[in-house]
Amino acid sequence: MSFKWVDETLYPAWKQSFRADREIVHKKSLFQDIRIIENEEYGKVLFLDGVTQITEKDEFVYQEMLVHVPLLIHGNAKRVLIIGAGDGGVLRRVLQHQTVEKAVMVEIDGDVIALSKEFLPEISKDCWNDPRAEVIIGDGIQYVADAPKESFDVIIVDSTDPIGVGEVLFTDDFYRNAARILTGDGLIVNQCGVPFMQAEELRETSLRRKKFFSYVSAYVAAVPTYVGGFMTLGIAGKKENPTNQTVDIIKQRAKVAKLEGLTRYWSPDVHMASFCLPPYIKENLP
Amino acid sequence: MSFKWVDETLYPAWKQSFRADREIVHKKSLFQDIRIIENEEYGKVLFLDGVTQITEKDEFVYQEMLVHVPLLIHGNAKRVLIIGAGDGGVLRRVLQHQTVEKAVMVEIDGDVIALSKEFLPEISKDCWNDPRAEVIIGDGIQYVADAPKESFDVIIVDSTDPIGVGEVLFTDDFYRNAARILTGDGLIVNQCGVPFMQAEELRETSLRRKKFFSYVSAYVAAVPTYVGGFMTLGIAGKKENPTNQTVDIIKQRAKVAKLEGLTRYWSPDVHMASFCLPPYIKENLP
Repeated sequence: MSFKWVDETLYPAWKQSFRADREIVHKKSLFQDIRIIENEEYGKVLFLDGVTQITEKDEFVYQEMLVHVPLLIHGNAKRVLIIGAGDGGVLRRVLQHQTVEKAVMVEIDGDVIALSKEFLPEISKDCWNDPRAEVIIGDGIQYVADAPKESFDVIIVDSTDPIGVGEVLFTDDFYRNAARILTGDGLIVNQCGVPFMQAEELRETSLRRKKFFSYVSAYVAAVPTYVGGFMTLGIAGKKENPTNQTVDIIKQRAKVAKLEGLTRYWSPDVHMASFCLPPYIKENLP
Repeated sequence: MSFKWVDETLYPAWKQSFRADREIVHKKSLFQDIRIIENEEYGKVLFLDGVTQITEKDEFVYQEMLVHVPLLIHGNAKRVLIIGAGDGGVLRRVLQHQTVEKAVMVEIDGDVIALSKEFLPEISKDCWNDPRAEVIIGDGIQYVADAPKESFDVIIVDSTDPIGVGEVLFTDDFYRNAARILTGDGLIVNQCGVPFMQAEELRETSLRRKKFFSYVSAYVAAVPTYVGGFMTLGIAGKKENPTNQTVDIIKQRAKVAKLEGLTRYWSPDVHMASFCLPPYIKENLP
């Protein structure tokens, strides 16, 4: 029996390939090539323009770290803005925090949402029906330009790499508006790639954010399918030194948010440890 | 121009592939298939029986964590035994500790050593000529069976996965003898695979070691080419709770060993953080 394989096309000299045990959907949307396959090792796998975005089996790593870390550092986040993340996995994790009152998600590609609802319900679960969720199919750049001053406590940017449709989410304009619509103790996080293979992504994004935020740092997560060692999640805030909590405070906040028992990668210890950056990563921060 | 690619054959449904910009050597030894290629992203890459063992660009992650963590936890390691690691990268890191008086390395496959000396000198540097090094081409199992009681402070097992030539390094016999030849505060480390894809490796190795050691734990490293999120490094000792040092003690010991400025992944902070295990990994420990 011969199998079909899907090769990731992110790097010229190295690639990962998933055996496509079943082709679930393959569609060209207005914005990108969307493909979902079924794989024995990773379950369902979503590719956008040939790059692995999320898999059913390992999504918990990225999502938990992208969401729980900023929300628990903030400690009192009531209004959260999510840019991208059309699969719904981030929205689902944000809404796990019982302390969140409103989560607005702005995804540019309605087809990603529609196909995820249909074929990846394991990732979003029932987040779409939560009364605290507002899902907007639209341009995140425009949304942050139009949103009122200080209207969000946390902004989570779940973008592709800064190529293609995600590129505008790494610009001065975007960060300027993000800073404007965040509250005084607000935080923004975004994925900054895998520094072992994409060091410039962390370096350039951090320099850019430094223009608009006094606190600019990064923390790490070991995501199986974002290959190349640690992936970095950039974090920035208007207040200096927002991450000065003890592990006990983080534990207490997780308890209040009712996260206990819901995580498989995140824990209070892992939360603290994720800010300990290997020298080869640290050297890319301003 | 068409390129040749080398596919790793570790998993049936997922694979990584390296573009072979140059085929450096490909030989069948008495024990295994040895292949070294040159790749734009990772530099020279060594495969044993089709499985990626080490690359020039990312070797520092695995080697630094496999070596510096146990040696600095021990704090006074003078005699170190290395099993496997024919490329010399572990030996080189052990000898960076100015406090080490003797490092014995036992590698079963003389061809791995010979080819590494010839084609991977960037990994071993000049460790082969250090007067503190004793390099034995022989059977590690036999060596630990014959070695005198309490003759080593630290044993570092740099084996392949428990398939093929490395399998015997995961047996009761091996661990029983390892415990016998370690000093009272001695420690043994060995790679326990990537739990996201090979959870049984960590689980079974830990259970086995629990028969002979009172302390059995694991710490993590995000190694780019050992794909699948965190790789675990198993650590065990005869003394209970050997890892109760503060970060300041680790920092001080690194200073005494003269490691400052020599590491790109390891740091005192990263050392401490590496013991914070995500729940999905922790659940595999006894």
